[in-house]
Amino acid sequence: MDIAAAALAGDRRALSRLLSWVENGTVAGHAALAQLFPQTGEAHVVGITGAPGAGKSTLVNQLAREIRERGQKLAIVAVDPTSPYSGGALLGDRLRMRALSTDTGVFMRSMASRGDAGGMAHATRDVVSVLDAVGYPLILVETVGAGQSQVEVACMAHTVVLVEAPGMGDDIQALKAGLMEIADIIVVNKADKPEARQTVRALQSVRPGMRSEGHHRVSVREEKQVAAEVATGWEVPILQTSALENRGLEELLAALEAHRDFLKESGQWRARLQENARAEVESWLQRHLLALLADEVGEARLTAVVDTVRRRENDPASAAQELLAAILAAAGGAR
Amino acid sequence: MDIAAAALAGDRRALSRLLSWVENGTVAGHAALAQLFPQTGEAHVVGITGAPGAGKSTLVNQLAREIRERGQKLAIVAVDPTSPYSGGALLGDRLRMRALSTDTGVFMRSMASRGDAGGMAHATRDVVSVLDAVGYPLILVETVGAGQSQVEVACMAHTVVLVEAPGMGDDIQALKAGLMEIADIIVVNKADKPEARQTVRALQSVRPGMRSEGHHRVSVREEKQVAAEVATGWEVPILQTSALENRGLEELLAALEAHRDFLKESGQWRARLQENARAEVESWLQRHLLALLADEVGEARLTAVVDTVRRRENDPASAAQELLAAILAAAGGAR
Repeated sequence: MDIAAAALAGDRRALSRLLSWVENGTVAGHAALAQLFPQTGEAHVVGITGAPGAGKSTLVNQLAREIRERGQKLAIVAVDPTSPYSGGALLGDRLRMRALSTDTGVFMRSMASRGDAGGMAHATRDVVSVLDAVGYPLILVETVGAGQSQVEVACMAHTVVLVEAPGMGDDIQALKAGLMEIADIIVVNKADKPEARQTVRALQSVRPGMRSEGHHRVSVREEKQVAAEVATGWEVPILQTSALENRGLEELLAALEAHRDFLKESGQWRARLQENARAEVESWLQRHLLALLADEVGEARLTAVVDTVRRRENDPASAAQELLAAILAAAGGAR
Repeated sequence: MDIAAAALAGDRRALSRLLSWVENGTVAGHAALAQLFPQTGEAHVVGITGAPGAGKSTLVNQLAREIRERGQKLAIVAVDPTSPYSGGALLGDRLRMRALSTDTGVFMRSMASRGDAGGMAHATRDVVSVLDAVGYPLILVETVGAGQSQVEVACMAHTVVLVEAPGMGDDIQALKAGLMEIADIIVVNKADKPEARQTVRALQSVRPGMRSEGHHRVSVREEKQVAAEVATGWEVPILQTSALENRGLEELLAALEAHRDFLKESGQWRARLQENARAEVESWLQRHLLALLADEVGEARLTAVVDTVRRRENDPASAAQELLAAILAAAGGAR
């Protein structure tokens, strides 16, 4: 039995190894991905995002327990594209792993940190595909609140949960201007804090604007698809959760399910699959092209061409045209 | 005289029109870019970033006046990749424009908002290239604090200024975990506020970690280039500015100049030019490929291939390989 078949059959060690292959972009990983791809497309992928300190990890942990108590399986992917010296996420995950590690119904994966945000997005997408294929019906993807990961997770997830901690007061609207828009569900965590009520009010005061304009994502999606989404009628709920008081988890789970049902009934689930398929094809097209560039043109010639651009002897568009012609000539000649 | 020559000769209306062409990716814009490219590479590009509400716009405005008082020219590019319904930046810019509009030594440009973060980055890069070519020695690029723009601006700018407002208290380290790393200079704005001192202390307490690990960027750069930067010795200064008390601008200008000198003396300025040249060539390569895809394969066939992926009849990597083969065959046959 090969590794993909073993992972499909429920072998967790095979799954772990396969995820490492996929994450590292090995040839064997790509082959397994191609093999598993027909099984994907069923999982509900939920992005959990928000600033560090908002309590995302604790919330995800509690959510996982609640889901497990209902007898449902889930996978958790923790993405940390920040610096090698933050490292907090990995430590935290290990602690959480221990609490849930005896339970075979939950699978947790921390993505290794890497400098290239685009590479991280691609690796996360591939890891989610594998977890989807091997049959986890719910995949929680937890990302830190800063930087490019916000946008990337929105492209990947069916449902984006924005976790907000109380105490920002009037600044919320401004501070979260770029984040509010990608949220399908907003959670005010640490709702036991006295400032929580003010935070909810502040969020409610900015929500009408969101509602009147509809649901909109800042992403690499086609504009027409964004327009289609704007026309639909999902109202972003503002929920309150508290780890201290063990409160709000049922409501959050109900909202996740309601959003999934909304996506399916409105036809957006299918549109999202189409959109993701196109994004993946274009992403692979670029990777294949860069591989061709390396194989057919070579690093030495690429560096030489880049040098002419740096010295302003050539402009980037013309240099790229030249390289593309070289690729086409070499690949054409090889046929 | 063509438009590029007119812009080079100091015609501001020609420059505005040219920037629109470039921003919209027109053929004429690309031709002008190629024509102007040899003149680029001289400007000091400074990214000014931080959360909305930190007072970036006011700071940029004051900085512009201070620079003008010294008799130096500058350009300002305001990038707002957030939603169509925020719109704040455009209004604010117009107000600022009015204050500086009688001064021909400063040129201000607001980038139109667009959904595609990658397209925004490319357009911003092209706009900066034109402003560089026509002779602005200093270009301030102001971006909102959320989302992908953080990372993109770091790739483009020589110097990244992170603007922080006081009052976040102990949360700073966590909140800014993803942003601190891209900063070359940290500014605590609104330093007249009583909480400013605490903010400075909080920032100083996280800085030693940055210092021991050196200067590191989360970006699409080559890892070896990051490693080269880590080895260098720039200490990120923490400055205080206040619009109310008109304080700290000279120090900030001095820090900008010190960082530029540091880049030049350490050889990083040249490395950055090489790196930017490579990023631009690769970016154009992808654009040319997508254009070839549209021309040689066509939207109908692309959609059909994406459909097979959505229906899980084909995996994305194989589908992309198929499309690339079609491009190569068509382009090869055409030769």
